[in-house]
Amino acid sequence: MTEQPDSRFHGVSRKELREVRSQLLMLLEQGSLGQAKDVLVHLLPADIAEAIEELPEAQQAIAFRLLSKDEAIEVYEDLNSNVQQSLVEEFKRQDVLDIVDKMSPDDRARLFDELPAKVVSRLLGQLSPMERQATALLLGYEADTAGRIMTPEYISLKENLTAFQALERIRSLARFTETVYYLYVVDVARHLTGILSLRDLVTAQTEQTIGEIMTRDVVSVNTDADQEAVARTIQRYDFLAMPVVDREQRLVGIVTVDDVIDIFEEETTEDIYRMGGVQSGGDDYFQTDLITVARRRVVWLLVLLLTNTGTTAVIHSQEAMLQKVVALSSFIPLLIGTGGNVGAQSSTVVIRSLNVDQLESNHPMWVIRREAMAGAVLGLMLGVIVVIWAYFLQGSLAVAIAVGISLVAISILASVAGSALPFVFRAIGFDPALMSAPFITTAVDVLGVTIYFAVAGFILDKM
Amino acid sequence: MTEQPDSRFHGVSRKELREVRSQLLMLLEQGSLGQAKDVLVHLLPADIAEAIEELPEAQQAIAFRLLSKDEAIEVYEDLNSNVQQSLVEEFKRQDVLDIVDKMSPDDRARLFDELPAKVVSRLLGQLSPMERQATALLLGYEADTAGRIMTPEYISLKENLTAFQALERIRSLARFTETVYYLYVVDVARHLTGILSLRDLVTAQTEQTIGEIMTRDVVSVNTDADQEAVARTIQRYDFLAMPVVDREQRLVGIVTVDDVIDIFEEETTEDIYRMGGVQSGGDDYFQTDLITVARRRVVWLLVLLLTNTGTTAVIHSQEAMLQKVVALSSFIPLLIGTGGNVGAQSSTVVIRSLNVDQLESNHPMWVIRREAMAGAVLGLMLGVIVVIWAYFLQGSLAVAIAVGISLVAISILASVAGSALPFVFRAIGFDPALMSAPFITTAVDVLGVTIYFAVAGFILDKM
Repeated sequence: MTEQPDSRFHGVSRKELREVRSQLLMLLEQGSLGQAKDVLVHLLPADIAEAIEELPEAQQAIAFRLLSKDEAIEVYEDLNSNVQQSLVEEFKRQDVLDIVDKMSPDDRARLFDELPAKVVSRLLGQLSPMERQATALLLGYEADTAGRIMTPEYISLKENLTAFQALERIRSLARFTETVYYLYVVDVARHLTGILSLRDLVTAQTEQTIGEIMTRDVVSVNTDADQEAVARTIQRYDFLAMPVVDREQRLVGIVTVDDVIDIFEEETTEDIYRMGGVQSGGDDYFQTDLITVARRRVVWLLVLLLTNTGTTAVIHSQEAMLQKVVALSSFIPLLIGTGGNVGAQSSTVVIRSLNVDQLESNHPMWVIRREAMAGAVLGLMLGVIVVIWAYFLQGSLAVAIAVGISLVAISILASVAGSALPFVFRAIGFDPALMSAPFITTAVDVLGVTIYFAVAGFILDKM
Repeated sequence: MTEQPDSRFHGVSRKELREVRSQLLMLLEQGSLGQAKDVLVHLLPADIAEAIEELPEAQQAIAFRLLSKDEAIEVYEDLNSNVQQSLVEEFKRQDVLDIVDKMSPDDRARLFDELPAKVVSRLLGQLSPMERQATALLLGYEADTAGRIMTPEYISLKENLTAFQALERIRSLARFTETVYYLYVVDVARHLTGILSLRDLVTAQTEQTIGEIMTRDVVSVNTDADQEAVARTIQRYDFLAMPVVDREQRLVGIVTVDDVIDIFEEETTEDIYRMGGVQSGGDDYFQTDLITVARRRVVWLLVLLLTNTGTTAVIHSQEAMLQKVVALSSFIPLLIGTGGNVGAQSSTVVIRSLNVDQLESNHPMWVIRREAMAGAVLGLMLGVIVVIWAYFLQGSLAVAIAVGISLVAISILASVAGSALPFVFRAIGFDPALMSAPFITTAVDVLGVTIYFAVAGFILDKM
């Protein structure tokens, strides 16, 4: 949230935004700055930011300068970090400083994370003392903690104020805080003693004291709490904001609900990337250079390749059997592929449930047993089809039956691996999402061929 | 949000909740209802709901009856739909009716979606006229639209009220609406003409009129807008709520930010399930019976199996070559496995970006070309390792080189398929998430073995 985020409500569709963008570009190239300004003035900050991001770099600074000071601050907060950085470099000291000084401390801390250390220390040194203190406070906490994402701009009240006095105070402070909807009550040592909502205050009798209206038992988080845990708590209780306290229970800031949505999106992207075997860097994948991308992807690929050499070794050890019944080799990809898919399904549902705290109440063994049964059912359904197809393709009943039986066994095994490994990973302190589709698929490959050759060897011997 | 969601702020940790749960169970089994009530009275509704959900079914109704009427309504809204249903069946008519009558209309509509039609029509017939109208309104809209998730409980004002009069009105209505923080201005025909926040109102002069304070240009959505689009708009502009209008621009309800978080979670689960090849039913996977689970998973597995029979057919057609150089078969899983993993990585990053609207500004061809380059870089890095391993394992340089070259070609191809297919799917109107890891992996299998045999045939001929 920016200052007074809710005092404007214009908005445009994606299509209109595309039109605005090309119109803006045309006007800037023609040098019709007045008209370009008229185009921007009707948009909301988030839309202006998007229009500016799409401009060629040379035009970004020009377009940005067309904005009024107040607008510039809000738009700047909404820009992506690449554009924020290039604007810092484009501008003269004082221009940037004014904007950076007026940003909300949490957005500013996020910007400082991305900027070169030299620029940060220069900017930090020139902020007004109050803003410098606020920023230094946030930068002192580790990334992804409550301390880092909170804003120190909230309204605090003393217990002995009357509702009338409190409303007066809010009136005078409303412009400078992120939210006025939750009000925090502190004692002389700034310990958080209570909380009330603006709704409570507005509906109270004017002569009641804050101490009488407030709720004393407050849900708060510590500064070093993980940002995802904070977000989950806000979601759970449908809060609009949550107070952050230090070890001595002194109020130091609040986390607001708009940040929660962004945190969930960031954490979800990280989960999804992990599930796809891509290391996430917290930044935009498509803005990262190719070398970084390759580095983030190759680690997983190497691990998987190593696992796959196991599969190769197993097949290599069975070359005598393959030489005799060459038809066996045609079914390897089908068997391990299907096993991988069944396992990927199991790991997907288990990982997602673990990540949204849905499986707290179910015992892992219950989940694994259930997945094993699902695997058996699915394996049987697919196995019947595969036996027919295999017999039709190469005419040997023995091979066809070996393929069918292997498929059932592999499906059960894949379901068990897919559902058990995320639990194992969580138990040893890793993110269960690491045990996802690519890994399960590859692990099932090794086990799959082993089972297949064992079953085939046994059946070919008998028939 | 429930009525006055923010007037209580107690909260417990997961560990405490587990203790509460076992204590509660013990007390209920002993029949110490008074003590059980004392345990519950200190918890927030979301925590009480979770404690009740974990109880054996026989105890759920008993625990629920311990709650005060007001508490019961809030807790009931937080229960999962299975428990809500079983409670409806446990209770006598009047008990349920009181609770259902006092639920927020959007939560009630969600409950009615899950209940048997007979129960719904009985309950609906017995609601108070106002609540019946509100519920019927919501139930009239399609699932997953703005109309279905909105609440008709908001505060609307007329332009000619003064700020003072408006505050008086809010004071009297605050108990009955979901949020008092955004106020909607309508004309006599209920057309939405403006919006203001409680912050705007509190900071205004008492004699100013609403018409003077309000913002006229309002961002609103239509009743049939997709719920995810509504959520994205609220996220984009950091709103706390958003007005929903009918075709004639008349205000019919609002969507609040707490619902947005739940919508994102629901939509993300759907995306992740799709990416794992599991059809999602919008309900909790682990609460669904095994037959439904198997049905939702088998469709995808059959599609993939069909694709895999292609791989089998390709290998089968090359049995003559395999008979001659049996070592070739050992490397098939490694090659198609690695290809599948590279492709899964590409499809993961592209699908996620498409789903969070991040790729609007990049041309698909740019993305695909970039992924192809990444695939080439990764393929070369892995290829070198694989050549060495392949030579070491079976001693034939020709086979080792064929494996290495194939790996590079397969990696490029997999990256292109992984990044291009999501775009293709979106262009023809499907969810890009359908083109995810399992599908890419399987598609790459067929293409992979084809490339491998072509390369191997060529090299074995020459060397």
